[in-house]
Amino acid sequence: IMSKGTVVLAYSGGLDTSCILVWLKEQGYDVITFLANIGQDEDFEAARKKAESLGAKKVFIEDLRAEFVEDFIWPAVQANAVYEDRYLLGTAVARPCIARRQVEIARSEGAQFVSHGATGKGNDQIRFELTCYALYPEVKIIAPWRIPEFYTRFRGRTDLMEYAQSHAPGDLYLMTKNPEDSPNVPDVLELEFRNGVPVKVTNVKEGKSKDSPLDIFSYLNEIGGKHGVGRIDIVENRFIGMKSRGIYETPGGTILLQAHLDMETFTVDKEVRRIKQGLGIKFSELVYNGFWYSPECDFVRFCIAKSQEKVEGKVQLSVFKGQVYILGRESPKSLYNEELVSMDVQGDYNPCDASGFIRINAVRLREHHRLQGFSGSDQV
Amino acid sequence: IMSKGTVVLAYSGGLDTSCILVWLKEQGYDVITFLANIGQDEDFEAARKKAESLGAKKVFIEDLRAEFVEDFIWPAVQANAVYEDRYLLGTAVARPCIARRQVEIARSEGAQFVSHGATGKGNDQIRFELTCYALYPEVKIIAPWRIPEFYTRFRGRTDLMEYAQSHAPGDLYLMTKNPEDSPNVPDVLELEFRNGVPVKVTNVKEGKSKDSPLDIFSYLNEIGGKHGVGRIDIVENRFIGMKSRGIYETPGGTILLQAHLDMETFTVDKEVRRIKQGLGIKFSELVYNGFWYSPECDFVRFCIAKSQEKVEGKVQLSVFKGQVYILGRESPKSLYNEELVSMDVQGDYNPCDASGFIRINAVRLREHHRLQGFSGSDQV
Amino acid sequence: IMSKGTVVLAYSGGLDTSCILVWLKEQGYDVITFLANIGQDEDFEAARKKAESLGAKKVFIEDLRAEFVEDFIWPAVQANAVYEDRYLLGTAVARPCIARRQVEIARSEGAQFVSHGATGKGNDQIRFELTCYALYPEVKIIAPWRIPEFYTRFRGRTDLMEYAQSHAPGDLYLMTKNPEDSPNVPDVLELEFRNGVPVKVTNVKEGKSKDSPLDIFSYLNEIGGKHGVGRIDIVENRFIGMKSRGIYETPGGTILLQAHLDMETFTVDKEVRRIKQGLGIKFSELVYNGFWYSPECDFVRFCIAKSQEKVEGKVQLSVFKGQVYILGRESPKSLYNEELVSMDVQGDYNPCDASGFIRINAVRLREHHRLQGFSGSDQV
Amino acid sequence: IMSKGTVVLAYSGGLDTSCILVWLKEQGYDVITFLANIGQDEDFEAARKKAESLGAKKVFIEDLRAEFVEDFIWPAVQANAVYEDRYLLGTAVARPCIARRQVEIARSEGAQFVSHGATGKGNDQIRFELTCYALYPEVKIIAPWRIPEFYTRFRGRTDLMEYAQSHAPGDLYLMTKNPEDSPNVPDVLELEFRNGVPVKVTNVKEGKSKDSPLDIFSYLNEIGGKHGVGRIDIVENRFIGMKSRGIYETPGGTILLQAHLDMETFTVDKEVRRIKQGLGIKFSELVYNGFWYSPECDFVRFCIAKSQEKVEGKVQLSVFKGQVYILGRESPKSLYNEELVSMDVQGDYNPCDASGFIRINAVRLREHHRLQGFSGSDQV
Repeated sequence: IMSKGTVVLAYSGGLDTSCILVWLKEQGYDVITFLANIGQDEDFEAARKKAESLGAKKVFIEDLRAEFVEDFIWPAVQANAVYEDRYLLGTAVARPCIARRQVEIARSEGAQFVSHGATGKGNDQIRFELTCYALYPEVKIIAPWRIPEFYTRFRGRTDLMEYAQSHAPGDLYLMTKNPEDSPNVPDVLELEFRNGVPVKVTNVKEGKSKDSPLDIFSYLNEIGGKHGVGRIDIVENRFIGMKSRGIYETPGGTILLQAHLDMETFTVDKEVRRIKQGLGIKFSELVYNGFWYSPECDFVRFCIAKSQEKVEGKVQLSVFKGQVYILGRESPKSLYNEELVSMDVQGDYNPCDASGFIRINAVRLREHHRLQGFSGSDQV
Repeated sequence: IMSKGTVVLAYSGGLDTSCILVWLKEQGYDVITFLANIGQDEDFEAARKKAESLGAKKVFIEDLRAEFVEDFIWPAVQANAVYEDRYLLGTAVARPCIARRQVEIARSEGAQFVSHGATGKGNDQIRFELTCYALYPEVKIIAPWRIPEFYTRFRGRTDLMEYAQSHAPGDLYLMTKNPEDSPNVPDVLELEFRNGVPVKVTNVKEGKSKDSPLDIFSYLNEIGGKHGVGRIDIVENRFIGMKSRGIYETPGGTILLQAHLDMETFTVDKEVRRIKQGLGIKFSELVYNGFWYSPECDFVRFCIAKSQEKVEGKVQLSVFKGQVYILGRESPKSLYNEELVSMDVQGDYNPCDASGFIRINAVRLREHHRLQGFSGSDQV
Repeated sequence: IMSKGTVVLAYSGGLDTSCILVWLKEQGYDVITFLANIGQDEDFEAARKKAESLGAKKVFIEDLRAEFVEDFIWPAVQANAVYEDRYLLGTAVARPCIARRQVEIARSEGAQFVSHGATGKGNDQIRFELTCYALYPEVKIIAPWRIPEFYTRFRGRTDLMEYAQSHAPGDLYLMTKNPEDSPNVPDVLELEFRNGVPVKVTNVKEGKSKDSPLDIFSYLNEIGGKHGVGRIDIVENRFIGMKSRGIYETPGGTILLQAHLDMETFTVDKEVRRIKQGLGIKFSELVYNGFWYSPECDFVRFCIAKSQEKVEGKVQLSVFKGQVYILGRESPKSLYNEELVSMDVQGDYNPCDASGFIRINAVRLREHHRLQGFSGSDQV
Repeated sequence: IMSKGTVVLAYSGGLDTSCILVWLKEQGYDVITFLANIGQDEDFEAARKKAESLGAKKVFIEDLRAEFVEDFIWPAVQANAVYEDRYLLGTAVARPCIARRQVEIARSEGAQFVSHGATGKGNDQIRFELTCYALYPEVKIIAPWRIPEFYTRFRGRTDLMEYAQSHAPGDLYLMTKNPEDSPNVPDVLELEFRNGVPVKVTNVKEGKSKDSPLDIFSYLNEIGGKHGVGRIDIVENRFIGMKSRGIYETPGGTILLQAHLDMETFTVDKEVRRIKQGLGIKFSELVYNGFWYSPECDFVRFCIAKSQEKVEGKVQLSVFKGQVYILGRESPKSLYNEELVSMDVQGDYNPCDASGFIRINAVRLREHHRLQGFSGSDQV
């Protein structure tokens, strides 16, 4: 029997993508599986054996953790990336990282096809496929959960999972402790930033510190998880226009967001920050919708990176019972000027100027008031 | 000696505004004091006696709590008002409330002058005075902390306070317990919204409920305070362009923000929400900068209110150790469609459509890729 | 033979939709044709006969001109609607007007299907169909130019038209004279606005005036057309992500845009106008993309309408050789204050205040400069 | 008599700044005059003699034309800079150029003071002074038109000028012919862009071309002026909150805006362009308000420049009777794909995908409709 060609399948080792593997072979494809390690808790060797036993022609298992942190999470930290005011985009930034490597494999293995196990109503299918199309425009994508002959046959099992997911949030959390069961003593951390990304984390009490991107991020996940930080239960708006419930945990990301917000406001000019805030919101929407690899996301990342050149210094914070408390900050590049802001030193600042400032700002407001009962006519 | 006229002084009962009262009399003004009760912990009768003993011609002490909640806090709740991603604008919304009443008194008492004790480097002077100019354009404002002969004489004392404020944050919190000392058992609340504002709060375990705006807000402050919710230590950018450190506690406001965000995302269309998010950021800047009474803030409030017509329903949440956890939500107006979003019911949704959706979204990305190594020339 | 059901076809009387009519009948549908008069130059009776002769079961020809102007063009005028800085959205606002009536007919005639002749790469298919789905969610849409068996059969003819369109722009203009051949004497008009929409146009020299929406708009098209106003040759970005060349003429719309911009800036508060400008850009994108009937477009229109309450007064302008020149304006609601702005009357304005205003605005800039060579460290 | 110090005065040679020169000397300052040539029609030698005869200690007359075009106008071209949809910011970009050189002179001459003749209600005082404070934070600024003893003495004369200005617009135009008197034959130009700025202009009929920035800009002013391009009569909102009437002519700028818009849309990705459009509006506000030298304007310029990397190619246009008509464009970097957009080549594009695209976009709209008559309750 002639092969229809080679497909690189994003494989998780779970039931879903195992079914897909088998089905793709049934359809006549040679299947290469690809399993990315981006930090999840997984038995990678078991997955390898399973893939091989199910007939994978080749099995790739790759550790993408370091590049995931540096190339994807760090830009999200710089952007203060939050979707719809609450969701920290953990899954959303993982997709382009995984898909990027998957198309590299497809190209180097001469595969014309890629496949994945994302469902037909979700965001991940879009994130996955837009990345593939952007980086490998000629690729052909097989999305079994959108192919009737596949999904009518396998639907039953997924219903169950879906059911479980929506009825037992408590058990879903894998990285974070329940804050009610978390330690009664805070951990105090010092996070050092340069160019808007963390370069070192120190546990102040224990003296322990980490300074590679992956180590920093892993450690923040560990500490955040221990204290139950970053659990949310939200309704969100998917790209395809549905509302759905999401339950997420982002322990390290939550600490990073709070610390970065603090260092950024401390060091970046007010108006630059305001413009950058708008770019950050745009970035978050783009990433959520799957446009990491797009001209506009490149552009926005580039602009945001520029805004971060002075985001340098140390933030002290405590982590306790699900919360992150900023304790203080210091920076060699701070625009904070103790003398200027202080009441007891007048310095270069003349309080009388404020009177003029306020009165000029009031010109328009007073004019507006004047017009409220107005009945003449102006002509120019 | 002839009076220079009558001045209505925003009086706190403290040393600062008492000094101002005496100084204004020295300068030849008749002084009417005005003390607004917006929920702060204060001995109002003691303040009255003090004002009278220092020579106030008339003393106004007024309970503005209900109108403060309804006219100022509720619109901020609808807006998800947060300045620079963190500050909930507690003080900023109080100023226009107080100043509005103060100019009413000035008008009805025939006073041409108003005065206040805000410093010359801060935001409050601006918030106070822009409100006065907007509502009483002819008013004359006496800001002693910007008048050299006043501030050179009284500066010493303020230095002290300033010093205290910036070196002992722990003691500054008046409404909130330290989360480390807060109860080990959460309170569970159900907050009901209509038109984007709370209409009822119920303590689920105790069965207790409140349904007037003031009662709801006070109760949320009580519960939030008990659990140490809403403490922040931030650096912020003042309107006048300085960075300053601020330590704030907003227990009730923090609960309301989380609950409102949840109900809003549950009930408001995705794209309406996105446009409204931009308006909310604008609203926050306007309020922070003192422009509550301005044509643009009227306009933005009007638009935001329109966006809230469907924000109706109940949010369940728990309050614990400084955190607010959303537990669930229900609404008669939700756009959430369990059937649509579910994996097991296909309903009206055809997963195949997603393929076309993705491919069309990829048209531009693939074209972009095509051009990367491009060397021809297009002409139209 | 059993009918597959009834389809309401947007019929133009031209070759394209005539082919579709016949093809739909071949496929087994009963076909009702619908031809909207939105002001185009058309022999409607000939179209009726043609439709009948080709087997239309029923023929609707309806004059939508008045509602097109009032419900669609007027909101676009209020919004200063321009897509990508240049395109005045003439076609884009026509689609929802036509499709709205088409689905009304479909509902009242019990038709489950609607059809149209828009191509598979353009914007009009989207504008048309999103309107249909929004107003008649259960409708089924037949888009022959996206159905292989149709388009492979009929493609040839369209190629020709397409070719003509892209190689002979000069002849494409139907409403506007070539400015080189237009009169050597300007027409001078006075346009009166209320609530941001025109309520009267007067030809100043001729004394002639019009005051119904349709008459005003038709007259502006006539005068603009006579003077060659509103021709553009642009490249635009379609919703589906392609760039395409567009050649448009919008004589009346161009006059309205210039006149409205002028009256709006004259009467609307500066900061309200700025917020509204952003909403207008959003509105333009929504309309271009086909989302006239969407919650967000409803919301934006509502907000824009609010911003127009004071846009009232008269604009004088001349129309000449492809250009519109604003000559002057008057308004009973203008915020323009001759006395305030004049050099010779100081009035309420104290120029010294400007010094304080500028110095406070410079606080941040001077701090920024101070930091450029800075090497210490701040801690807060 | 001891000098109060040295002041560098922005001198125009006219009556106003001559009065200021004399007055500053009366006040005890040594006065250095500085007159910048930014392309205005001026007898510079006469101005030199006048300044010397009035007692200037030193006279600087400098040709800033080339740096004005390259450092200030070109970035405005990249930004499509337009304030309030109409004003092309000609004066606004000139101020920082002049003030930059003025503070350089002040520094090199050891002058602690700078002075200018801008009035106390206008924008130019702000643009001038913010530049000075940003680049020379310790400088002291003398603004005579805000000093009562000066302006009460000299007011009369200015009234006259002001009067003239507001009652005889026709005579105010210096660079542009009245379109009614302009040639009856268009000029046809080809403008070549690289990185979003013009690098060459060719008069197609005459074969003449220019390729230095200053020559290009001067030539566009000449051709635009000859055909009466770029005259506007507007009401604008000044930074200080007043509305004022402005009559401007920007012949070269208007041609550049139209040509740049065209090349930009032709070559820049749709979504990049949309984000950049927002930055351009921000840039325009900043420049209008005098913040050319500010961290945020630096940031915005940097981002805009990035967006222009592909804005490369040639635009053909005709200039005639006050109008600019785009005739065509070509580019080696265009995203325009004739094959993709054409009807007759299907290529890689599958029209069927559009069905899915539209249906997915309609999911939300149909849901919204479903809810209109809805009366149940959702719970999640």
